[in-house]
Amino acid sequence: MIIDLRSDTVTKPTREMLNEMITAEVGDDVYKEDPTVNALEERIATMFGKDNALFFPSGSMANQAAIKLHTQPGEQLIADKYAHVYNYEGGGVSFNSGVSCKLIDGYRGMITSNQVMESINPPDFYHSPLTSLVCIENTTNKGGGACYDFDEIVKIKKVCDDHNLGYHLDGARLWNALVAKNETPKDYGQVFDTISVCLSKGLGSPMGSVLIGNSEIMEKAIRVRKVLGGGMRQLGYMAGAGLYAVNNHLDRLKDDHKKAKEIGEVLEKLSFVTNVEPIDTNIIIFTIDGDEEGFIAKMANKNIHFYGMGQGKLRFVTHLDYTQEMHEYFLELLEAI
Amino acid sequence: MIIDLRSDTVTKPTREMLNEMITAEVGDDVYKEDPTVNALEERIATMFGKDNALFFPSGSMANQAAIKLHTQPGEQLIADKYAHVYNYEGGGVSFNSGVSCKLIDGYRGMITSNQVMESINPPDFYHSPLTSLVCIENTTNKGGGACYDFDEIVKIKKVCDDHNLGYHLDGARLWNALVAKNETPKDYGQVFDTISVCLSKGLGSPMGSVLIGNSEIMEKAIRVRKVLGGGMRQLGYMAGAGLYAVNNHLDRLKDDHKKAKEIGEVLEKLSFVTNVEPIDTNIIIFTIDGDEEGFIAKMANKNIHFYGMGQGKLRFVTHLDYTQEMHEYFLELLEAI
Amino acid sequence: MIIDLRSDTVTKPTREMLNEMITAEVGDDVYKEDPTVNALEERIATMFGKDNALFFPSGSMANQAAIKLHTQPGEQLIADKYAHVYNYEGGGVSFNSGVSCKLIDGYRGMITSNQVMESINPPDFYHSPLTSLVCIENTTNKGGGACYDFDEIVKIKKVCDDHNLGYHLDGARLWNALVAKNETPKDYGQVFDTISVCLSKGLGSPMGSVLIGNSEIMEKAIRVRKVLGGGMRQLGYMAGAGLYAVNNHLDRLKDDHKKAKEIGEVLEKLSFVTNVEPIDTNIIIFTIDGDEEGFIAKMANKNIHFYGMGQGKLRFVTHLDYTQEMHEYFLELLEAI
Amino acid sequence: MIIDLRSDTVTKPTREMLNEMITAEVGDDVYKEDPTVNALEERIATMFGKDNALFFPSGSMANQAAIKLHTQPGEQLIADKYAHVYNYEGGGVSFNSGVSCKLIDGYRGMITSNQVMESINPPDFYHSPLTSLVCIENTTNKGGGACYDFDEIVKIKKVCDDHNLGYHLDGARLWNALVAKNETPKDYGQVFDTISVCLSKGLGSPMGSVLIGNSEIMEKAIRVRKVLGGGMRQLGYMAGAGLYAVNNHLDRLKDDHKKAKEIGEVLEKLSFVTNVEPIDTNIIIFTIDGDEEGFIAKMANKNIHFYGMGQGKLRFVTHLDYTQEMHEYFLELLEAI
Repeated sequence: MIIDLRSDTVTKPTREMLNEMITAEVGDDVYKEDPTVNALEERIATMFGKDNALFFPSGSMANQAAIKLHTQPGEQLIADKYAHVYNYEGGGVSFNSGVSCKLIDGYRGMITSNQVMESINPPDFYHSPLTSLVCIENTTNKGGGACYDFDEIVKIKKVCDDHNLGYHLDGARLWNALVAKNETPKDYGQVFDTISVCLSKGLGSPMGSVLIGNSEIMEKAIRVRKVLGGGMRQLGYMAGAGLYAVNNHLDRLKDDHKKAKEIGEVLEKLSFVTNVEPIDTNIIIFTIDGDEEGFIAKMANKNIHFYGMGQGKLRFVTHLDYTQEMHEYFLELLEAI
Repeated sequence: MIIDLRSDTVTKPTREMLNEMITAEVGDDVYKEDPTVNALEERIATMFGKDNALFFPSGSMANQAAIKLHTQPGEQLIADKYAHVYNYEGGGVSFNSGVSCKLIDGYRGMITSNQVMESINPPDFYHSPLTSLVCIENTTNKGGGACYDFDEIVKIKKVCDDHNLGYHLDGARLWNALVAKNETPKDYGQVFDTISVCLSKGLGSPMGSVLIGNSEIMEKAIRVRKVLGGGMRQLGYMAGAGLYAVNNHLDRLKDDHKKAKEIGEVLEKLSFVTNVEPIDTNIIIFTIDGDEEGFIAKMANKNIHFYGMGQGKLRFVTHLDYTQEMHEYFLELLEAI
Repeated sequence: MIIDLRSDTVTKPTREMLNEMITAEVGDDVYKEDPTVNALEERIATMFGKDNALFFPSGSMANQAAIKLHTQPGEQLIADKYAHVYNYEGGGVSFNSGVSCKLIDGYRGMITSNQVMESINPPDFYHSPLTSLVCIENTTNKGGGACYDFDEIVKIKKVCDDHNLGYHLDGARLWNALVAKNETPKDYGQVFDTISVCLSKGLGSPMGSVLIGNSEIMEKAIRVRKVLGGGMRQLGYMAGAGLYAVNNHLDRLKDDHKKAKEIGEVLEKLSFVTNVEPIDTNIIIFTIDGDEEGFIAKMANKNIHFYGMGQGKLRFVTHLDYTQEMHEYFLELLEAI
Repeated sequence: MIIDLRSDTVTKPTREMLNEMITAEVGDDVYKEDPTVNALEERIATMFGKDNALFFPSGSMANQAAIKLHTQPGEQLIADKYAHVYNYEGGGVSFNSGVSCKLIDGYRGMITSNQVMESINPPDFYHSPLTSLVCIENTTNKGGGACYDFDEIVKIKKVCDDHNLGYHLDGARLWNALVAKNETPKDYGQVFDTISVCLSKGLGSPMGSVLIGNSEIMEKAIRVRKVLGGGMRQLGYMAGAGLYAVNNHLDRLKDDHKKAKEIGEVLEKLSFVTNVEPIDTNIIIFTIDGDEEGFIAKMANKNIHFYGMGQGKLRFVTHLDYTQEMHEYFLELLEAI
């Protein structure tokens, strides 16, 4: 039994999802003639109460396209220092959009409206970049799956409105936040200008992200997707998986969260674990006393795989393919260390 | 019966291909752990006698990545005025790479080594962009599926070597050229620094292109794919289709070419057709005397679909889903006009 | 006596201009506190009947800033194939703005409204770049100092208005056109969105160009100048030269034009000169039968300096430092060849 | 008597400098034929023991060109959070080079070799930008004119060498550091790949900066200057001022430093001044208890001008035009508050 806790991106489609994929009706999506892609886009747009949604090959491209749609070269966006768009998208903010980042030292990847306010460059001081966008992440990836308090999200929106800033949500794991906090997609649709959501990760479909927004901004999104090379053909096979995932895999995220909490409870009891960060969703970040790389290697020998995050931190991520059987085995194994 | 001759991109997988897709072994390709993607990349690299190949969501991204790998911002590439990279990739040459195009007025989308030579800016005249890349297309798309004479391709290579220029082949329809001219992938692998080939179009798989090159240049390709947002997860389903296509759909391109020639022969006889361009592969470009839009609409009423190219030109493209039955019906219908 | 006919950029300030420079009142122009720069900018804006003008270190930067102000990355501008912005600004259109050029095969560097119309990409066909700007040059540099017919300029404006395109004039030698065609700056101010004019070249000041436009577009110009690194400090010394030039050196351009025509008349009579292009202003382009490089070298031995333009063409440019004495000597010398 | 302590950029040429300017021999620097520009560039290159130097219209452009020369789009540079290149160059790092910044929380704008080491992204982790450049500033601007310990500069060089990073010095006020620490330009030339120095600021010439480096990197600098629009014509007038400044105004920076220290001593005694930062050169940063804007306004009424830096901090900068007479008057006035 191999237990892969490196990320929730490693999941493979269930038999039911595979069946949905293979029976999907397809067409040429570059001509917007793929009925399954169209159905997925319409479904997601409706869920969030927005005009439009567009399928992208990756969450990175969905985020990068959103940043391009909100900014002009030379401008600046505000994000937490842990932001995926700054740290893990290959430098794309600068490469694709010519934009710089003002990074905030937030709490577990989450920033406050006050911090945003203090980070806005004066618009008439032309020596500094013009601030034009705020990007937040919910749940936070590097912040350990932390969920924003929705009130703070709304307060940040107020700052954006007052200062004429776009507001983008990197919702790669928004589904986890919705389930954890009992919120609805429409809550988020009402606040953000654009939202990216991932069909892989927690939802377990093989690939793809969707960017959501109103028509004013989204009518240019297909041009940006084109120029980045994200236009694909008979994509309905993948969109079919995404549709199935949205219809069937949302509620079950609670199981991932429950398992994560249970792992955390065991970790708390272990003598060599010096800290376990709060567990809001499906990500567990903890610190051990001792040789991090050695611990990873030792566990790998037992077919348990996960990543170190540097500076003594380790991370487990629960997901669709981490079964109850694996969970029970893993908890026992942890307790026995 | 609907006959769709708009493009060879509209094909849908055969039953056998679908079966190959659904039974593909998959993994997370962002970690390079998808065995089917890896097998496809290795297969294609070997076919062309190059070190590496990398899967991309689209031919546009494969071409754009190649251009980025060969150039620095401010430089210039040389291409035919019909080049797909200039005309149909959303302005990506400038957007993604900050590069300009020196366009040559070639023959049916094909340029000569002499034309390339005359288009190189003097490297020490810093007022003009530094020429650093030659891109050719084989077969040509807007040029009507024309195939280069391989000797000319080799002569252009000589010019590139003499002037320190990269040499990229947009091989979206290279498979058609190979079959039409009885050439091998290795012939091309020996000449070009990078080659993009498409798994959709003639080969009939649902999506994806592959970029091929030696390790010196390809080791940076995955960074470029990442920053453009082209990294995907369990892609093996799509790569499986691509593998099947490469193994089973190459030879049958002869059928597409044969049908195209037969259509051309009928067109030649029609009184209202004023010109039929030479037909080398699966694209037929012809000119009619009279109302272009009207003709398209009239044929659409008969469930025959195709595109106009502007300036009185019309285009048919034959492909996997254009069956013998359709062909016979269509020839009769054409003759009866 | 050294006769330098390479370009009108080689002129040096007259004693009167130098005096104006040295007595200029100056301040820190980055804070917009240089009174002489401010006076020059106001003077030029008023001449053209526009809201604002901004001093730039070079004509290239003024043009590049205008292109940036009118476009977004990925878009396309329309220009003549001889355009300075495409050929001689280091690839800046793509480097600075991520924009591509649709080049028109015009007459002596001049394009027509019909050609512009045919070059606009359909705005809803997102595979091609969005056309957003037309740039024309008056007089044309590579086109031999040709002057547009003002009616054609107005017709192009109509096309721009109908298709929502910006309209920029590269007026590096606009002063020559004004004098040659008896037009006024206000004529041009009424038609174009932005105009760059050069204070060096014909006007004879040591450096600098000015970009002119209405406040809607110009309020962002100082940001673009800043990011390109064009903000300078006690610039009044240079602006003083520019003010003097505008006040004193406009009318005398007629002398440069007269001399150019007289040189042309002599060239027409020379047996080895196979063609003399029409001479509208201060640039003479002609073709010789025989060894171009040899002729240049032979004349250089006689202290006469000028450039070849490739493909057998040679170019003389008359200017402020090409005196009547030099002119008489040169005509004699030419006739004696 | 107006006392302007806003910046050392506000200085105007002395009579001797003006004389040097007006008698400078000039030529067309775009053709590299301006003897005074050439002499200045050679002089500066020799001072620093480097192969080449190139004149730029501004320090921003010199820095931005250096960053472009050291990096490719998508890469990352390391700098202090106060860095001029990040904060005050209009977002140029991303706009001009497509590069992002990893900012270090240093001491008074200065970073350590250990901090640099920890900020380098792992080169094989392609999700993060490739680190390719370290930029430091000496003296630091926003850090209050602080001077690096030269040993630390050398240690950072070691990290750069070990990790294949370029090393650029933003030496806008390097002259002040040289004088304050009794160092030589050659010390710096031996350590850095590129250095920008300013001829305005402390040296008091009207405009211009110079970028210095060895020929391998500098041979491309003129292309970058061209594409940014920094090529100018008869620049010798300005270069002459720069040459005079380098020859005559270096030593006198000690006076500016002495005056700054004396102002600091007075500030220390004032009851409403809560903090005076260490004064290494000509910049004084201090904090007052009370209404910052009110204090600035009150002093402006007395013809004393300076800037606030936000968060309660105020800044004075001494310079060539802040005379002994002004100094004595100002100290008295300060003491009397």
